[in-house]
Amino acid sequence: MPKITIAQNILAANDTIAQEIQQLLATRGIRTIELMSSPGVGKTTLLERTIERLRGQLAIGVIEGDIETGTDAERIEAAGAETVQINTRGACHLEAHMVRDALQEINLIGMRLLFIENIGNLVCPAAWNLGEDIRIVMVSTTEGDEKPAKYPHMFAVSQVMIVNKIDLLPYVDYALEKVRKQALAINPNLQIFEVSCRTGEGLDTWCEWLIAFANSKTY
Amino acid sequence: MPKITIAQNILAANDTIAQEIQQLLATRGIRTIELMSSPGVGKTTLLERTIERLRGQLAIGVIEGDIETGTDAERIEAAGAETVQINTRGACHLEAHMVRDALQEINLIGMRLLFIENIGNLVCPAAWNLGEDIRIVMVSTTEGDEKPAKYPHMFAVSQVMIVNKIDLLPYVDYALEKVRKQALAINPNLQIFEVSCRTGEGLDTWCEWLIAFANSKTY
Repeated sequence: MPKITIAQNILAANDTIAQEIQQLLATRGIRTIELMSSPGVGKTTLLERTIERLRGQLAIGVIEGDIETGTDAERIEAAGAETVQINTRGACHLEAHMVRDALQEINLIGMRLLFIENIGNLVCPAAWNLGEDIRIVMVSTTEGDEKPAKYPHMFAVSQVMIVNKIDLLPYVDYALEKVRKQALAINPNLQIFEVSCRTGEGLDTWCEWLIAFANSKTY
Repeated sequence: MPKITIAQNILAANDTIAQEIQQLLATRGIRTIELMSSPGVGKTTLLERTIERLRGQLAIGVIEGDIETGTDAERIEAAGAETVQINTRGACHLEAHMVRDALQEINLIGMRLLFIENIGNLVCPAAWNLGEDIRIVMVSTTEGDEKPAKYPHMFAVSQVMIVNKIDLLPYVDYALEKVRKQALAINPNLQIFEVSCRTGEGLDTWCEWLIAFANSKTY
């Protein structure tokens, strides 16, 4: 089956680069988080709110992955963090070589925490290591409460799940408890945060955890 | 560049099967619509509401694509349509050979309109023809109003855009006019519907259009 062999070779080559990235960042004392979700769940908004809250406490950098446009990187820059935009021009996920190139374009001096925001896609990014220490999958109360069951791989490879838009719970049919149960059935070690990036609810708890994570050596 | 050659061969083989599907369905007088969106935009709910409204007027069939679970097909069956579920077991999009196999499992006699609901993914499905007559991209008011600019290919290959969840407009920051403009800049011929599958707003107009489409020979 030559098709499968090729796919494995590509992933193995990706893993080699991902290991180099992880080593480079570990040497510099930078902790790295990959952020994944469907389109429009609020990844960039979460980063904006997080950067604003932790300004002066924690030096954050962001690698922004998008198929097209540089609007997300502009938003992150305006929020006050070092950032670099990757445009994949059609590709549905980031690969480690793109992150390696992006790291040449960002000032790592003094950085403590690096976010890699992947393309909005609840499927493909799960298969590609980018050199991150941990992975976060983000969902929202407006996208239906059966996502862990329907896209299990994403939840299996993540260490953290963030549920965003809890301010909209009164207006949508979304059973938080069902989502928690589904996600924990796939991955019992998943750490879960429930937030509203719009009202700020839950962001204090999230930021406290983030500071502890940045100060830890292992997850 | 052997990698590119392989990708083109796979897509060309897919197109051949897609043409066979289109011919088979045209011979039977069945019009076919592929439905694409991010996860959780409401594709299955739209189909449920549509099937309920058009019962007795238009015989609808549905091919349900999901990575895992059969819950969507169960919902469609309960709404009263012929349906068959495809589980891709990890793959991020449907391919024509999956649709060809699914067509062996569904009763086509008397069917007038066939929906193919793709995996929730705003990127990969755009590259694969499935034998459909037209493609619909569905977005929602809760996923951010920059989606056409960030995922342009999906809007370029579609003939129709449906904006769902307009009942939530008072509670989110979503500029409908901006979305319309972005989408039409990419694809000036895009037909646009604005609906709420929850309240029913806009569904009469959508269903009238659908009946006209089913009765037309060309789009």
